[in-house]
Order: sequence, then structure tokens, then C-alpha cells
Amino acid sequence: MLFGSDNWAGAAPRISESLGRHSVGYAPAYGDSDLDKSVEATFNEVFETDCRVFFVGTGTAANSMAFALVMKPGGVAFCHREAHLAANEGGAPEFMTGGGRLCAVDGPLGKISPESLLRVSEPYSSSFNHLGQGTMVSITQSTEAGTCYSLSEIEAVSETASKNGLVLHMDGARFANALVDLDCSPSEMTWKRGVDMVSFGGTKNGCWCAEALVVFNPEIAASSEFVRKQMGHLFSKTRFMTAQFQAYFEDGLWLDLARHSNSIGNELVEMIQNSNRVRLAWPSSTNQVFFVAKREDASKWLDAGARFHLFPTPEFLEGEISGDEQLYRLVASFISTSDDVKALSSVINQ
Amino acid sequence: MLFGSDNWAGAAPRISESLGRHSVGYAPAYGDSDLDKSVEATFNEVFETDCRVFFVGTGTAANSMAFALVMKPGGVAFCHREAHLAANEGGAPEFMTGGGRLCAVDGPLGKISPESLLRVSEPYSSSFNHLGQGTMVSITQSTEAGTCYSLSEIEAVSETASKNGLVLHMDGARFANALVDLDCSPSEMTWKRGVDMVSFGGTKNGCWCAEALVVFNPEIAASSEFVRKQMGHLFSKTRFMTAQFQAYFEDGLWLDLARHSNSIGNELVEMIQNSNRVRLAWPSSTNQVFFVAKREDASKWLDAGARFHLFPTPEFLEGEISGDEQLYRLVASFISTSDDVKALSSVINQ
Amino acid sequence: MLFGSDNWAGAAPRISESLGRHSVGYAPAYGDSDLDKSVEATFNEVFETDCRVFFVGTGTAANSMAFALVMKPGGVAFCHREAHLAANEGGAPEFMTGGGRLCAVDGPLGKISPESLLRVSEPYSSSFNHLGQGTMVSITQSTEAGTCYSLSEIEAVSETASKNGLVLHMDGARFANALVDLDCSPSEMTWKRGVDMVSFGGTKNGCWCAEALVVFNPEIAASSEFVRKQMGHLFSKTRFMTAQFQAYFEDGLWLDLARHSNSIGNELVEMIQNSNRVRLAWPSSTNQVFFVAKREDASKWLDAGARFHLFPTPEFLEGEISGDEQLYRLVASFISTSDDVKALSSVINQ
Amino acid sequence: MLFGSDNWAGAAPRISESLGRHSVGYAPAYGDSDLDKSVEATFNEVFETDCRVFFVGTGTAANSMAFALVMKPGGVAFCHREAHLAANEGGAPEFMTGGGRLCAVDGPLGKISPESLLRVSEPYSSSFNHLGQGTMVSITQSTEAGTCYSLSEIEAVSETASKNGLVLHMDGARFANALVDLDCSPSEMTWKRGVDMVSFGGTKNGCWCAEALVVFNPEIAASSEFVRKQMGHLFSKTRFMTAQFQAYFEDGLWLDLARHSNSIGNELVEMIQNSNRVRLAWPSSTNQVFFVAKREDASKWLDAGARFHLFPTPEFLEGEISGDEQLYRLVASFISTSDDVKALSSVINQ
Repeated sequence: MLFGSDNWAGAAPRISESLGRHSVGYAPAYGDSDLDKSVEATFNEVFETDCRVFFVGTGTAANSMAFALVMKPGGVAFCHREAHLAANEGGAPEFMTGGGRLCAVDGPLGKISPESLLRVSEPYSSSFNHLGQGTMVSITQSTEAGTCYSLSEIEAVSETASKNGLVLHMDGARFANALVDLDCSPSEMTWKRGVDMVSFGGTKNGCWCAEALVVFNPEIAASSEFVRKQMGHLFSKTRFMTAQFQAYFEDGLWLDLARHSNSIGNELVEMIQNSNRVRLAWPSSTNQVFFVAKREDASKWLDAGARFHLFPTPEFLEGEISGDEQLYRLVASFISTSDDVKALSSVINQ
Repeated sequence: MLFGSDNWAGAAPRISESLGRHSVGYAPAYGDSDLDKSVEATFNEVFETDCRVFFVGTGTAANSMAFALVMKPGGVAFCHREAHLAANEGGAPEFMTGGGRLCAVDGPLGKISPESLLRVSEPYSSSFNHLGQGTMVSITQSTEAGTCYSLSEIEAVSETASKNGLVLHMDGARFANALVDLDCSPSEMTWKRGVDMVSFGGTKNGCWCAEALVVFNPEIAASSEFVRKQMGHLFSKTRFMTAQFQAYFEDGLWLDLARHSNSIGNELVEMIQNSNRVRLAWPSSTNQVFFVAKREDASKWLDAGARFHLFPTPEFLEGEISGDEQLYRLVASFISTSDDVKALSSVINQ
Repeated sequence: MLFGSDNWAGAAPRISESLGRHSVGYAPAYGDSDLDKSVEATFNEVFETDCRVFFVGTGTAANSMAFALVMKPGGVAFCHREAHLAANEGGAPEFMTGGGRLCAVDGPLGKISPESLLRVSEPYSSSFNHLGQGTMVSITQSTEAGTCYSLSEIEAVSETASKNGLVLHMDGARFANALVDLDCSPSEMTWKRGVDMVSFGGTKNGCWCAEALVVFNPEIAASSEFVRKQMGHLFSKTRFMTAQFQAYFEDGLWLDLARHSNSIGNELVEMIQNSNRVRLAWPSSTNQVFFVAKREDASKWLDAGARFHLFPTPEFLEGEISGDEQLYRLVASFISTSDDVKALSSVINQ
Repeated sequence: MLFGSDNWAGAAPRISESLGRHSVGYAPAYGDSDLDKSVEATFNEVFETDCRVFFVGTGTAANSMAFALVMKPGGVAFCHREAHLAANEGGAPEFMTGGGRLCAVDGPLGKISPESLLRVSEPYSSSFNHLGQGTMVSITQSTEAGTCYSLSEIEAVSETASKNGLVLHMDGARFANALVDLDCSPSEMTWKRGVDMVSFGGTKNGCWCAEALVVFNPEIAASSEFVRKQMGHLFSKTRFMTAQFQAYFEDGLWLDLARHSNSIGNELVEMIQNSNRVRLAWPSSTNQVFFVAKREDASKWLDAGARFHLFPTPEFLEGEISGDEQLYRLVASFISTSDDVKALSSVINQ
């Protein structure tokens, strides 16, 4: 019944073992070990292209670093109002860019449309210094609403971004969940659709602490080593992170872990649809599932040991939730089980 | 013969095991797990006082956060010219404070004296806005020169700092090495001498990645949660770090690891003193040892598989190193052995 | 017919004369001259209280400095979506605070209501570091829409701000226009209503370049000298600015200038109401007047020598402007005349 | 006897008159008036090349903007230890660059030599992110010591800068004083010697408030409008500054004013050399003159109405000033007279 967050789970056994295995012996620090190099090469294979890989400690650091790499004076980034960047990172992106502005784009199901992006970004022109100049647009895949941009949706945002001189960043804190949901390759979901860089998250999908900013566009990466260093995210024993990623990619572990949590997500959707005590807030296809329930009921279920969180009501749902109701989020992780779903079901439907 | 750095070693077995042990099961993220709380309590016991503990990913982050906590407009921090803060952190302290200035204090053996601190800090007054205002002084224990401030030396700097309204920070990247060298308690080396906060490093002493800013002065810690968050150093699965610290403190592992690397350091000193191919640059008592050798010789030893690095010549040694010589640093770690020392000795003295 | 902006006018004759008069002779720099001190004293008299006065070069600098004075890590300020701070300052407030966030509050007629402020500011709590912490709310008086907050409206915002730990800032780029419109004293419009600081603008009302941040709350002003200095806004020959302010306040010149431009504003309102080619967008009582006209018509009038600007359509007016229409702004200044209004009228109504 | 500073003088009559003359009539704001354009063209003529001109309110703003234009992550600028940038700007350059570092270069007579520049800048390499990367070197002309770099000295620094990928900035707060002393053209002293940008100061030489960053290298100027805006230094009524510059350049007024203050400076040198109560600290050829006197004597002269300031003893003079002596600075301005020198002489030599 523990659906609080996918970052409440520990580490997958094979990732834990890999850490143990690589804990012995000497190796150069600061990203220069053989393991570090080899995992960077794996990223190149996974993405089927030359790319630069910058390991950092948190998703917040990866997202902020992305914004910092493209920052200009008066620089502005566009992202969905619910994006982690804007709603959960304590101002890190603004801080790490020395004053960059995040402009919220609204849209249902956690997604930016080309039209909404255009409307919000239009006033920010590089020839009008009284407002600010656009630098990048960030999309979250899978989104904070548990949905996924389709490949053609990514392409559409990409075209609008490109026409307006905006770099396209993807916050992939739940990259693997989206990938297995869309059943496509990493390259198809990213640079082949015009994505310039990805915050590639392993932590929510079975790693202890493994995040990387993957940059496809070499121009963007120019001063990146200095940017990461001044953020305090150049780790000395980088091996501790690459050891995790090695196991993560080996034999498709990352995809298996994501498939598992998505499938538990689907069980949660079904369970909700079959219940008359709760209703599905919107359809989602990954490991995050949203439902509406009476405040009073939810409170009882939490008392009974269930774990899930309140979620702020998005604009498109306003008016559809009555005064004694509230929106809640369930998150499945790599250690969630069908038994957890059943247990939650019996608490809800008792 | 691998004396490149103490961050080239992996993780001590008991730390690695602890990570494996804590990788299972659900626990609240962002520092709220039972393990996180329990390790914070351990820090309080270790330091014999109430203190706030902020886990961060790197020593650079801890040092920068310290400066950020006390930053004021036009704010300046004072540290030794060779301090990691000034010489090895890529401008992170300046960046994380939005423009803080580091003022270098010179002095032999990596140490600041009250007199040198006073001379450098005097012009920075809170009533003269044309220059800047002093905020803190940072001392490194053990120093970048492998030496240690004695307790009375710390006290002397502390008194001068305090008289001049400066907060006293200790960069304890090698805290344990200093502690076992001085054979005193953590409290005696810190808050009992007037130290207000410590960058407490575990990484160089057998952890994978375990650093904490320990703050004794509650006023300083006011906005610290926001500061850490905006640096991108609030980890979701904080457990991965507290699991390391749990093992680190258990049964005095941390002191044993430091005693070991210090004792290998002492063997290196002896080996150097007994050689006529190299000479000791200055006496040091921890795991960092400095020697002068002919460039040409050093080059051969490196070719023979020895690992050590060039070190910039400090001011007090200028004139004592001839044109064909160079200063080098050896660093012993928790996995260094007497055999490593012997192997190096035979390469040097062959 | 020149209604482009009140900053297209030069300087009022008495202000120009004062500059000439004070251009001779020696006087200490950096705010320490007798004239500087005397004008500071005048500010104290004008506001009938002890206040700190910080002369800066632009309204953008005054507003940014206000935000900087109260900035905290993860700090957020709330202001109307159309506020100069958010819509016309090129990211200066974010930059000058090292990453502060501006949160837009919507509301008709350029005004924030206590309810809208509460709704937007509520999620920003000092105990939840994942979002950010509120620091201040800024209201513009008179507003960007040419309207004024009534004294009780200011008081209502002030109470909500105060209950939520927010400092209250007033952007007074057109302070005098509001003051003569409300027919009250400076103290009644500011600190007696709970305003903590005012960006006091002289430039739009007949000065060359004369702006000041006036701070009523001494705690806020603590590091202000350093803040201004690091913004590059401590002027050496401060006299050039205080000479302007001396003439500005003498014999109520500032109020006369504002009364004049407001009265021309009123003539513009009347002219628009009497025309069937344009319609008043909303009632305004100061020197800024907004009308809706056909794009095609406006273009002709501009060709005929009239000067006015497009204005972005505010949210509350969406749907009330048809596709071939557009919103325009007229601004009267101290040199505008009734003849200018008549000339514009004949161009519009010809 | 008033030799406190050249910024204690007001404005030259013709500059004051120009302000009066241009105070009437309408003109576009934010640098778009005819006068603004015409003065920009004058700058192009004065420097005999295409250049971009950015008017800002203070020398601190011009210097900080210069550093900001070339800032990179981990960016470092090199300047003389006594440079205004490092010693008198309250951390503005560091703040305006979001954490840039200023590295002090020592050298006698306020000058940087190619050798000293090389020694200090060498460790800062764009391929070693643990320290920082060099961005620019700033030289002050005339220097804080009242001396001037010869054309060949500028060229030598320029060559070293260029070889090491550093942009060359000139702090020209006293540009005119240097120019008339060297008796060369603005172009010969700047871009023909490899200078990339100049902080061109008018304030210390008879203007009220007139400073400009002049950029010869168009690549550097890319985002400059946004940089100035976010510093709060885009003035609405830019005319008030260009009106000053118009008069400044007309009929060589600026050179006449500088010739005058330099010649008073020379009279001060002579007076000092002829006195047995004071001695010249070092030879200077502009309007700043430095002498050594007994503390006790100086105190009497100040009591008698003389105005001059203490000056920190530069490194190269240490040991040459005895315990009861002190270094003092005299600054002549456009309103200083030979009678002032005589009056000071009689006070000193009475």
C-alpha cells in the first residue's frame, strides 16, 4: 500500500551489487576512471549518437544545469506550470542561472502544446530588452501528470521551439517509464525529434542516486565542465554513480524496472475504475496515477496504513472536484507489487 | 605505489555493506527516513552538542553552502591561499553566494595566523561600502599541506575572527585525519574552540560519497534548507548517504580508517627521510606527504607505475627549490599498504 | 499630439535651473554633501517620519533594490502581472536578487486584491523548501493601468501581506500622480497604510533622472549601502540628483507637475468619450489613458504625427476587443497641453 | 586647497548649459533620441572606428558591465591590486557577473606588466575546471597611482592577453587625463593597441554623471542591451547623459578640462618637490599626486582647511615609509586653481 513516491524505494539489488563490486581498487577520480569512460560509451550506444554525459547528484541539478548551459542575460525558459523545474525545485533553476526566469505554460494532462508555447513565449524577443529573451523550452517525459507526449507531440513542440530560437530540453526524471510506454527507442524519443538535451534520471527507477544531463548538441556543452563544477556537482568518486548506471543498462534492467512500475500503475488504474469510492482523475499510462476522493475517506485510508499524497488541482480540472473532495496521487515503484494494489483496494473498498 | 589521491580509493567494505543492507524497503525521502534521523542523532552524539546536519554531495557543496549561509551584500570570506575553497573549487563558493569574494591569506604550512588574518581582513568593514564586508574565515583541518592546526592555534584564529565579527568555518574534508593526529574529541577540535560550522567529509576517508555541513550556531542555519535545495543538493534517497555515515561512525570505523592512512603517511615520511634521491618538503603528520625531487627522476618513477601529483610551490618555499626540481604530493588512503610504501621506495631508490 | 510616454519629456525648467545653480563649488561625493543631507531631511518631512533614502539612477534599480533588500534563499515576490517589475525590467529584479522569482497576480484595472494575493502566495511557505518562500508583495501606485489603489485598498493588501509575513513595497514611479488624484498626504498613502518601502520616482514627473528607494522599516535597510553599491548605483556626484529633488519638492512643484499631467489625462478621457471613432478601454484618473480603436485607424493617426503606443491586452479585457481592434495607451506629461489634446482630437475625429 | 577628489567638483559650465538647452521638447526615451544617436556618432568619430557605446550611470557600472559581457562559468578577470574594480567597487564586478573572481596582479606604480599578468593568469586554464578560466584583463589608464601606461606598455599587456585568450579592458575613469599626458589620439591609446573595450569616464573630468562602456569588438557586445537593462542602467531620459557628452566633446572641451587638471597636478608635484616637510611618493604626470608626510603634520594641515585623503601604501613602497609617516593623495580637478596650490603650499610650509 506504499504509493507515496518512487523515491521512497531503495535501490534495485543488481544496482546495489554493482556498487559493492566496484568499491574495491584504485581508479582516477573526477570522471576519469575506466568505468566512468565505459558508462559514457554506453550512453552513446543507448542513444545511438555522440553525446556528452554529465553525471550530477539530483534531477534538480540536471534541470538547473540544462537551463544554465543556455542562459543569456535576461534569459527565460518555458515549461509547464506543473513542471518539476517550476513547482518543486525551490528556485534552483533561477538561482543556478543567476536570475533566469521560468515562464509557466498551461495545458491539460501536464503537456505543453505548440500553440500555448507560442502564446507565452512570443513577447520574449532578443530585440526587446525591456522584457527578456527566450532560451529554452523544457518538456517533462513522462509528465508530472503520469501521461506521455507522443512522438508527434514532441516533434510539434520541437518545431515551434526551433522556429523561435529555443533549445529543447527534456526532463527525463521518469524517462524509462515513458520509453516503455511509447515502446520506442531512446533516440526516437529525443534527438530524432529535435530534443537538444535530456535530464536522464535513474534514481526514481531503482538507482540510489544516479542522474545525468545528456547533451546532444555539442555547442551547448561548451563550458559545461565549469558549470557543473561551480554547482558543486563534480563528484570525486564518480565511480559510485557510474557503477549504478552500469548495472542499470546491463541486460535492459532499466526497461524491466520501468515496465514493472508501469504495470503496477496500470493495475492501480483498473482498481480505481472498478471502485465506486474513488474516480480516476484522468487517464495515465505510466507509474503515476491520479484519483479523486472524499477528503474524509482519504484520511481514513491513510490512517489504515496506505501511503499516497495530495496533489494540487491543475487548471483544467477546476470545477470538476467538489468541495469535500480532493485530488490524490499514487506512485508505483520498482518494489511495488500486485499485493500492494490489492491491499490498497481492500482498504478503499472495505 | 598508488598515492595519487585519497579520492582514488573506492569504499570501505563495511560502508559498502551498509549500502547493501539499507537498499531494501520503503522509507520517506528528502531526509525524513528513520535512518536519516538516527544518523543526525549520531552526529549530535559525536559532537556532544545540538547541531544541525546538512548532507550534501561534495565537499565543494559543503564549503560553498557554508559561505552562502553567512553571505551578505558585498560579502567576503577569508581563507588560506591554498585552501580548497580558493584553489580547487572552480569558483563554486563565489557562484553559490552570487558574487562573494574570497580573500587569500598567506602563511607557511597551509595555516592562517591571527596576525595574517587581521592584516587581510582589516580593510573590509561593515561601515565602508566601497570595499566589502567580512563574513567568515575558513580554516582547513587537516590543511592542504598535510599539517594540523593545534587546538590553541584554532582558538587563536577563533578569537581574532570573533573580535572582528567573522564566523569561523572549518573545512574538514580530512577531519578524521586531523582528529586522530591531535588525539582529541570532535567537540574539542570544533565548537569548544569557537568553530561555528564544519564541512564534515567522509568521502576521502572510505565513503563513496558522504559529506555534511554541520552547523553549531542555530542562527546561521535559518534558511539553510532553502539554500541546500537551490544548490541542487537535497537528495531524494538521502538514505544512500546516511547508510554510509551509519557504518562510518559504527565502532569507530572512521577513526580506524584515518589512523591507518595517517600511519601510512608516517611511513612515507620515514621513507623519504631515508632516501638521498628525494627530500621532505616540510614535516606533515597526516596522510598527505610532500617531497622535492628532480623533475627528471619523478618522471621516471611515474613511468615505473608510481602515482603521485605535482603540487604548486607555496610562497614560503620559494627559493628553496632549484630549477630542475619540483614539489610533489603523496596521499595515503584507507587502502594504502606498507607494501605500497616499500614498492615506491624501491622505485625511488633503485 | 505627443503622448508616447511621460519619459519622452525633458526636465522642468525649475529642475534644470537647480542643476545649474548647484553645479559650482566643491562638495563631498557619495551622498555626503550638505545638499544631499538636506534633501534626505526633506524626504523625512515630506513623509512625516524617519526614513532612509537611497538615491538610484532608475526605477528599475529602485524596484530591484527593494526586492534585493528582503531577498532570502528561494525567495519570491508577488506583483501584478502587468507590473513594471515583471513586464518591463528585463529580468533585473531576478538578476539583482541572484535568482529571486516574481509571481504574477492577476486582477482587473492593474490592481492586486487581497484574495488574489492570497491564492497565489499561499503555496510559498517558509517550511516547505521544494517551492520557495514569499518575501514581499509589490503594488504600483498609480498602476500601469492609470488607476489608483484607494487608501482602503492599500490597507487591505497590507493586512494580507502582513499576516503572511510579506513586506509591502510600493512602486511609485508615478507616485505624485496618485497622490494628487487621491488628494491625500504621502504618509497616508504609504507607511500609515503599512507600506514598508517606496520606489519614489521623479523622472516621469519632470526630473531628468531622480529616483529614490525610501525605506520606512529600519530593519530592512540593514545592508542597503552595500546592496546599492554592488548594483553600481552609488553615484559619486550625488548632488546632481539631490539638486533635482530639491527643486522638485520646493513650493510643491512636484504636486503641480502631477496635477497638470493628470488634468491633461482627464481631458484625454473626455475627448475619447466624446468621439465615436474610439472608445475608452476603462476609466482612469491619472495621466495614463487607454482606448480601443481600429488598427487601421490608429495607423493613420500615427502617420498624421500623433504619438502613442500599443498596449498588451490585459486578461480582464479579453473578448471585448474585436479582431480588427487594438488597445492603445496615451500618456500625458508635464509639458502636454490642452492644444495637444485638441490636435489629437481633430486627427482622430477628422 | 580642496584636493579631496575630482568627483567633489560639480559640473563644467558648458556641460551645465547643455543640460539646460536640451531639457525642452519631446524626444524618444531609452537611447533613441536624435541627440543620443548623434552623440554615439561622435564617439565613433572620436575613436575613429565603428564602436558600440553603452551609457551607464557610474564607472562601477561600466567596469562591471565589461566583466559581465565576457563572463563565462568559473570566469576570472585580472587587474592590478589597486584597481578600482578590485579595491573600490564593493564587490559589484563579482555580483554583476554572478560570481566572477578578480585576481589581483601586483606591480609598482599601479601598472601590470606582461610578466606579472602571465604569472597570475597561468593557472587559470579553460581545460582545468578545478580552478577557473580567465576571461579578461583590465588596465586602468591613467592608473590609480596617477601614472600612465605608455603606448608600448599597453601593447605589451595586450599581446600577452591576446596570446592567453584574454579580452583587454581599459578602465578609463580618467581617460582624458591619460590622453593629454601621452599626447596621442583615443584610437592610438585603445583599439590600435589591442584594447577591446573602454570604460569611458566623463564624471571625474567635469560632467555631472556621464559614463559609457565603449566596445570595439562587436562579438563582445552581443547581449549587451540585456546586460545593461538587468543592471538597472538603461536610463529612460538618456538625453540627460548625451547632453553632457555633447558639450564634453564640443571644441575639445574634454581635453581642455583634462589639460587643466593635469597642469595643476604638475604644480602640486613641483610644490612638493620644493618643500622639506613632505616628499613625493613617486613621480606622476596627471591630476593625482602622492606624497609622504608625518601623520602629525598632515593632521594639522587638514585642520587648517586643506582637503586630501590617506592612501593605502602599495607593496612596492613598503619599508620606505617610517612609522610616524603616512601616504597621502592629492587630486586636482577642473576647478582647481594655482591659488589652491599656493594656499596648500603655505599651509604645508608655514
